[in-house]
Amino acid sequence: MMKTMGCCASICQCFFEYSTPKILVIRSFKVGTLNRITQALVIAYVIGYVCVLNKGYQDTDAVLSSVTTKVKGIALTNTSDLGLRIWDVADYVIPPQEESSFFVLTNLLITLNQTQSHCPEVPKTGFDCTSDRDCKAGSRDTRGNGVQTGKCVKYSAVDKTCEVLAWCPLELDKEPPNPPMLADAENFTVLIKNSIRYPKFNFNKRNILPYVNKTYLEQCVFNRITDPDCPIFRLKDMVTEANEDFQTMAVHGGVMGVQIRWECDLDMPSSWCVPRYTFRRLDNKDPVNNVAPGYNFRFAKYYKNGNNEETRTLIKGFGIRFDVMVFGQAGKFNIVPTLLNVGAGLALLGLVTVVCDWIVLTCMTKKNIYNEQKYSYVDDFQLLSNETP
Amino acid sequence: MMKTMGCCASICQCFFEYSTPKILVIRSFKVGTLNRITQALVIAYVIGYVCVLNKGYQDTDAVLSSVTTKVKGIALTNTSDLGLRIWDVADYVIPPQEESSFFVLTNLLITLNQTQSHCPEVPKTGFDCTSDRDCKAGSRDTRGNGVQTGKCVKYSAVDKTCEVLAWCPLELDKEPPNPPMLADAENFTVLIKNSIRYPKFNFNKRNILPYVNKTYLEQCVFNRITDPDCPIFRLKDMVTEANEDFQTMAVHGGVMGVQIRWECDLDMPSSWCVPRYTFRRLDNKDPVNNVAPGYNFRFAKYYKNGNNEETRTLIKGFGIRFDVMVFGQAGKFNIVPTLLNVGAGLALLGLVTVVCDWIVLTCMTKKNIYNEQKYSYVDDFQLLSNETP
Amino acid sequence: MMKTMGCCASICQCFFEYSTPKILVIRSFKVGTLNRITQALVIAYVIGYVCVLNKGYQDTDAVLSSVTTKVKGIALTNTSDLGLRIWDVADYVIPPQEESSFFVLTNLLITLNQTQSHCPEVPKTGFDCTSDRDCKAGSRDTRGNGVQTGKCVKYSAVDKTCEVLAWCPLELDKEPPNPPMLADAENFTVLIKNSIRYPKFNFNKRNILPYVNKTYLEQCVFNRITDPDCPIFRLKDMVTEANEDFQTMAVHGGVMGVQIRWECDLDMPSSWCVPRYTFRRLDNKDPVNNVAPGYNFRFAKYYKNGNNEETRTLIKGFGIRFDVMVFGQAGKFNIVPTLLNVGAGLALLGLVTVVCDWIVLTCMTKKNIYNEQKYSYVDDFQLLSNETP
Repeated sequence: MMKTMGCCASICQCFFEYSTPKILVIRSFKVGTLNRITQALVIAYVIGYVCVLNKGYQDTDAVLSSVTTKVKGIALTNTSDLGLRIWDVADYVIPPQEESSFFVLTNLLITLNQTQSHCPEVPKTGFDCTSDRDCKAGSRDTRGNGVQTGKCVKYSAVDKTCEVLAWCPLELDKEPPNPPMLADAENFTVLIKNSIRYPKFNFNKRNILPYVNKTYLEQCVFNRITDPDCPIFRLKDMVTEANEDFQTMAVHGGVMGVQIRWECDLDMPSSWCVPRYTFRRLDNKDPVNNVAPGYNFRFAKYYKNGNNEETRTLIKGFGIRFDVMVFGQAGKFNIVPTLLNVGAGLALLGLVTVVCDWIVLTCMTKKNIYNEQKYSYVDDFQLLSNETP
Repeated sequence: MMKTMGCCASICQCFFEYSTPKILVIRSFKVGTLNRITQALVIAYVIGYVCVLNKGYQDTDAVLSSVTTKVKGIALTNTSDLGLRIWDVADYVIPPQEESSFFVLTNLLITLNQTQSHCPEVPKTGFDCTSDRDCKAGSRDTRGNGVQTGKCVKYSAVDKTCEVLAWCPLELDKEPPNPPMLADAENFTVLIKNSIRYPKFNFNKRNILPYVNKTYLEQCVFNRITDPDCPIFRLKDMVTEANEDFQTMAVHGGVMGVQIRWECDLDMPSSWCVPRYTFRRLDNKDPVNNVAPGYNFRFAKYYKNGNNEETRTLIKGFGIRFDVMVFGQAGKFNIVPTLLNVGAGLALLGLVTVVCDWIVLTCMTKKNIYNEQKYSYVDDFQLLSNETP
Repeated sequence: MMKTMGCCASICQCFFEYSTPKILVIRSFKVGTLNRITQALVIAYVIGYVCVLNKGYQDTDAVLSSVTTKVKGIALTNTSDLGLRIWDVADYVIPPQEESSFFVLTNLLITLNQTQSHCPEVPKTGFDCTSDRDCKAGSRDTRGNGVQTGKCVKYSAVDKTCEVLAWCPLELDKEPPNPPMLADAENFTVLIKNSIRYPKFNFNKRNILPYVNKTYLEQCVFNRITDPDCPIFRLKDMVTEANEDFQTMAVHGGVMGVQIRWECDLDMPSSWCVPRYTFRRLDNKDPVNNVAPGYNFRFAKYYKNGNNEETRTLIKGFGIRFDVMVFGQAGKFNIVPTLLNVGAGLALLGLVTVVCDWIVLTCMTKKNIYNEQKYSYVDDFQLLSNETP
């Protein structure tokens, strides 16, 4: 019959064929229930977990962010070195601007009027001496403050140490003042302006929300309950939210993370996409396996005296660095991840048949009937010639 | 028959079995056409959209980037405070180096010769007074510039304000000059050197492309049409590309995003992987719900006068911060995402059968014939004992 | 029979139905072997490659990181300008603190005692002149150092150049000293403290590992073989690991990437999640298509002289910027990606049937027998009325 048709007709016939598997329907309370339950589980998983909870139907994008900060506040210190002194933002924010972090000085060790000259090293193992023979000219120890001249000189009435060429007088190796000098820093406020962008979805937003007006911004301070959308933060509040004590942290300094999370479902109104602020201490305060605990760095202000000689004021500044970390992802419906998940879900439905078949064909009492109906055999083995019906 | 064989033979037989579903082929114009169209749709989707457009066969990696910048240019200002003055790169880039952004000073309010001393507060609500009783010694208002001494002193012929300990004279709370002082900044150029890396594919590239030579680099300026590969940008051009006016933006400052996008298909020649530059204003210029519009910060230069007293020049610097944002992803053929997508695509082909079966078995005129042929029944229910043929 | 049942019973019956495809089992050495091999390949791929190698069963998260650095060391320079001079950390780290990078000055060109005044331009094409007519008052060339006054003045015994208003004396346009001035910088050490977080898994860790104690940290230096967990790095070691010569790099400066990779399998003990340090030069040292090779920037120290005039020391600082780049991802078992991959794997198993069917039904000698057994036909075409048995 096939041979009488032309090749073209054969292809046509093939094209208009529809292949569908032959199905054995087993009508049974046990098997049916098992089947439906398994199906329900898989469908519930696909819809409930993948689609609803994990939003598997969405394409996602990572956030691009820009941050500017502006600290405000005045601190007063009273020390024997400096007398009564006011510190304003130009004094305590170092460097004056950074990309997405800011440093607030809270404590300091100051060494005034340093010049390039000779002076005895600070007494420490390795720098003590009794005569010039104990000192090696040109030696520069990484723990030292300068290059040894080879002389052994008096440091105090009792100690003699090697002389060094350095910025003299040397900084004294002592603990920072406690309570911290700029204890007032806890009342400083910082305005954090953050604008974000999800480039894949061409979506922009700022942390100053549209409904917030200028009057409110001029007097508000962030509070998780009463003012959760105010972008002005009191330093102490941020540290307290991270379960730390500001005054304790201020002594040796530290690093705080200001985390701004933008988790946005762009299938929803864009006004639902709001920043969530959390605060966390990033450095380790555990003194056990810690070198140089806290956060400090040295910087200097350079002057020239009347003789055109350079002098400097060395400051070992302890303080809190606030790193503003912006993260989060936006999701928006996209057909590709949807179909990927639906496809995987359908494939899982295939599992149902595998599981049920196994139970039906091995555990049920009528398994022989089912087997006979489900399977037909074509046999190639000579030793088994009459298996097929 | 089975019982006569050993267990081993039984396993062998099982191993060499090949199970294939029994298929009912329906030859029909309607059904066949429906089937082929649905199949074509699914295949077209999988190949066209997933593979070609979304490159579902590629593994992807995010970019690692390093940026250095170098600004060039000279500005001239002429003010009553400073006289004729030249500003070069060491004067207007603050801090002198940053990791992936740079700040160019465009406008400033300068307060010369400040010392730690006493002076009357700037007149503002809360600082006006008529007698000493209106001022509280030790009070430090966040809006104020220092700590009150408790005295009420003359600010001008008519005003009296509370005296403060502060850096005196105080900065005047006035608007920045318009036109901006460093209006010349629009002609500054910046060389942006960016080297990127896709660690997963061990691929490195720079934004100075291989064919670009030194002579060209010494005189070129980026232009989207004539010089799209020149990494030297005129500040005004960048601001103009973001649809902003440089001179207007320069007055209060702002934040510009210099976006470098590296979208690389590493299955293609690596020379096709080139950076795309776009420019966007990142801060909000809308004056409605905005505090501290623009971008400014305070910094100071510290001096010592003849009496070894510290004085400083306070500068409220307005300017444009350029954040260089490097993003993009590279894709390269990888078998895992390919098979993931092919697998999901095949699973979707399974949908075709589901859809066609439903139509064939419920809507077609010959549905009863199809049903009879497709389904066999094994019945467990006592009430239905003669359904199976 | 069906008609005698109520509608409810019909739905019930439908609910308790279990549909399973009818299967033709072909018992054949060839076909069976082919089938099992294809199956084995797919299963091996899914288990071996997707699950074991690519950990397809894990959900992943990108790292959030915080970095602080502390450089230590002393350098000695001896120049005609400055005499014998000590450089400590406050002198050579500029700016004193940055978020995740640090710059170490290794070489410099210093121009002392600049004031705002008039001086002849540096001789270069475009600035040479013979009379005042060659100079244009107010002209500011981007390659120049100031604004021309319109006068033509003597630069040296032989050269005349246009006079400019600038910070005078001008910086000489010369190559940086070789060997570099702060050659001692190779022995500087830097402590890098890095704390990371995987927010999705609420997992925190630091690069100072728990077993490391304070005594060890005070004297260790990173060495890939003997001290791979010490977070203190000698600058020279880092540069050497990147296959660069420190002294050569120090002359013109450069950018080094300190890459910290945290590749964490959180299904394993958290102590297995350790940082891996690698070092790479990020800028291009190839002199062919390179402008401004190396890394340098200008900064100034401002002074006031006895007449309250501002003077400055301009420093063109060459040095190495170390960018600390923290990357990596954590994986943890999650049911969604697992099922996604299992689903895709199962779908691929469907491929086995497609491939084997094609071979069996077209290439085997007994293909007609198999065809007859596998396919039944329902025919709609009038020309083919007796195909179905």
